[in-house]
Amino acid sequence: MDFVIIGGDAAGMSAASRAKRTMPEMAVTVLEKTEDVSYSACGMPYNIADANREIDDLVVRTADVFRRKQGIDLLTGHRVESIDRENRTVSGTIQSSGAPFQIAFDHLLIATGGRPVIPKLPGFDLPGVLALKSLDDGRIIKDYIQGNKVKKVVIIGLGYIGLEMAEALRERGIDVQMVKPGPDLLPWMPRELAEVVAKELTAKTVQLHLGCEITGLDASDDGLCVVCKDRKLAADMVLVAVGIQPNSEIAADAGIETSIDNAIAVNPNMLTSEPAVYAAGDCADAIHVVTGQKTWIPLALRANRAGWAVADNVCGKPTELQGVAGTAVFKVFDLQVARTGLTIEESRRFGFDAASVVIKSASRAHNHPGAQPIHVHLVGDKTSGRLLGAQMVGIESAAHRINAAVVALHNRMTVADFVQTDLAYAPPFGPVWDPLLTAANQLLKRL
Amino acid sequence: MDFVIIGGDAAGMSAASRAKRTMPEMAVTVLEKTEDVSYSACGMPYNIADANREIDDLVVRTADVFRRKQGIDLLTGHRVESIDRENRTVSGTIQSSGAPFQIAFDHLLIATGGRPVIPKLPGFDLPGVLALKSLDDGRIIKDYIQGNKVKKVVIIGLGYIGLEMAEALRERGIDVQMVKPGPDLLPWMPRELAEVVAKELTAKTVQLHLGCEITGLDASDDGLCVVCKDRKLAADMVLVAVGIQPNSEIAADAGIETSIDNAIAVNPNMLTSEPAVYAAGDCADAIHVVTGQKTWIPLALRANRAGWAVADNVCGKPTELQGVAGTAVFKVFDLQVARTGLTIEESRRFGFDAASVVIKSASRAHNHPGAQPIHVHLVGDKTSGRLLGAQMVGIESAAHRINAAVVALHNRMTVADFVQTDLAYAPPFGPVWDPLLTAANQLLKRL
Repeated sequence: MDFVIIGGDAAGMSAASRAKRTMPEMAVTVLEKTEDVSYSACGMPYNIADANREIDDLVVRTADVFRRKQGIDLLTGHRVESIDRENRTVSGTIQSSGAPFQIAFDHLLIATGGRPVIPKLPGFDLPGVLALKSLDDGRIIKDYIQGNKVKKVVIIGLGYIGLEMAEALRERGIDVQMVKPGPDLLPWMPRELAEVVAKELTAKTVQLHLGCEITGLDASDDGLCVVCKDRKLAADMVLVAVGIQPNSEIAADAGIETSIDNAIAVNPNMLTSEPAVYAAGDCADAIHVVTGQKTWIPLALRANRAGWAVADNVCGKPTELQGVAGTAVFKVFDLQVARTGLTIEESRRFGFDAASVVIKSASRAHNHPGAQPIHVHLVGDKTSGRLLGAQMVGIESAAHRINAAVVALHNRMTVADFVQTDLAYAPPFGPVWDPLLTAANQLLKRL
Repeated sequence: MDFVIIGGDAAGMSAASRAKRTMPEMAVTVLEKTEDVSYSACGMPYNIADANREIDDLVVRTADVFRRKQGIDLLTGHRVESIDRENRTVSGTIQSSGAPFQIAFDHLLIATGGRPVIPKLPGFDLPGVLALKSLDDGRIIKDYIQGNKVKKVVIIGLGYIGLEMAEALRERGIDVQMVKPGPDLLPWMPRELAEVVAKELTAKTVQLHLGCEITGLDASDDGLCVVCKDRKLAADMVLVAVGIQPNSEIAADAGIETSIDNAIAVNPNMLTSEPAVYAAGDCADAIHVVTGQKTWIPLALRANRAGWAVADNVCGKPTELQGVAGTAVFKVFDLQVARTGLTIEESRRFGFDAASVVIKSASRAHNHPGAQPIHVHLVGDKTSGRLLGAQMVGIESAAHRINAAVVALHNRMTVADFVQTDLAYAPPFGPVWDPLLTAANQLLKRL
């Protein structure tokens, strides 16, 4: 039986390894367009922050290990360009030689990931205008900083990657300006929480330009320039971090169904609309555990988990994934920012009669040395009483506290039940009432 | 309507404040035998650690605030000695004058807390043999250390309080030896985790004497001496920390039902066997959310929550508590130790067909700077597939990570469902697969 996988990152290599472990006799072929497989993509900003670290530190397992020790037929530099559903083959080009290739499959996994969105505006193809997604992107950015003695960077976009890169670049003493067309720093957050993040960025001398419509990029002898309607921002390098989109074109071209945000539609088994063709990772959609509806939230854990699920299904062990809660955490200098579930706007958009609360608590007990403020935003549904979402910002422990809310969302818990949970307490680690419980107690009054 | 509360600590004052807030016209009387109310008892070791901090730093709200601002009739120095169920009165002695008092109630809350277990062996009544439970105990210990220039302490018992006090005393440069009759450091933990704790204690020069049967305490001009069958341990002060027991005698004497560990039996409304008589806090039992059976686990959050529930019930808003998961966290020098639910032995004792797993993971992502080992023990039930308990030891984030497992226990989640939870991931905060998920993935193979 031939199991062919397009894409050798988190989802693809998880599937390949697990399938080969379960059924060593199965032929498992991975077609990866780059030379890199199995690396910690999310670790790139932290690696770029440190001039002395090799980017290859992020490689978890080398191609060689997959090939020799695990017996996976890993073909790097192989770009797949089309899928033939009828003849059950995939075709493409070998990058080094330009030669075509064609491979037959019994089972196919499309794990083509995503790519950065690049605005269709003048100048975004100039040298020094870079985006971060693949390990090679990381390599290019790191080399560019070094090779061009980059001293000032403009980051377009203020999502997770933009914010993590702002920290990474400041670590290296590089001036950072951040610009976005929208007026709000983190529009999915209530103002009280977003302001904590804004203050932290300002304190770390990151200059914010919110509500600035960008008309294009210019280059001169002095370097690059981000041209906005009302200002010009000079830069040695421009980082485009306005979001990512799924690499779903080869699937769509083959007539495989796509859904929200053009992600490849999959059922709980990770099967696409085509028999024996699976999709997993950043290119595939998922069910949101709060709304029960399709969503596209590209995240690493889901990619790994979905890769495993595909392998199990291919190996004859039927496996379903339940869905995602939309959990995300990131670090912004000294701050931890975390979210799970729906925002208040999303809740309303999905028809919930939503109420929310923002509280400020402390990361340690009353008068315990070292206590830091922690801000919590909770969203609940007045009709069902259910918890719908949580967001936290704090210097200490926000990233791990969010997980209690995540598990609550998976269980469709009511806020009334959540306030009864026996969360941990000891003075060095929190108040008697965990900040999440304090918020839930307040939210309960509004439901 | 007269609402009388015996005991002015966490449960008692929570109930008093909430009742008075809900029904300002209600007469709320609190009878507290000491002069202290509303303080962070769990904060005492950290306060004792710092010679420059006043013990009264731990007071959250003074008696005066309760009396003047909240209108609670707070009678400190009032020791209740008996409850008359028939005539609905409580009687006792005013500590300062020795005068008797008697007060009638419509609703009564018994929130008498617990007290340290003192072994019935010779010498445990000697000066300098102290235990820590009330704020006054903390005051006495702190004064004793200062007044007697204490340089070496023997701690009898290796529970949470003993371990926290070991750290506190080492902070102050005091030599610490710990002794217990049992052979295991933390017998409720698997050996792999307990060894991590033992290493930390040894690294911080705390001397452990396990499996040492104590025959009594001696005093000489040189100080105190803990006499074991096979050794003698000299000390300037002896701390007895072998456990606590519920103060349930006045309830039992009045014919009110007690249950496990002599705790006062309460129903989900916190009602005792006697109408309109409630119990809450360290003196009362609870339902364990994993076993569904009675348990006695005295902890601060439960006390606060139970106090509120009593107030709501007294004020005509019927409120039930669901139960406790037995969650506890504590700090042992640089280590965080956390547990929730059942141990493997408890699981078997309660009739589960239990399996368990121990894993070692990391607190941050692959190659992320600052990653620390984190050890996880998970217990599951082969028959139902349910998660039964979790324990963690680590330098970073064990205390907050445990809460994901807590919420899972409250929802009676299977391990198979738990591994599907969308826990947070970012390189500074954990591996892609959270240590809890890695453990759950392993445990799943054994169920």
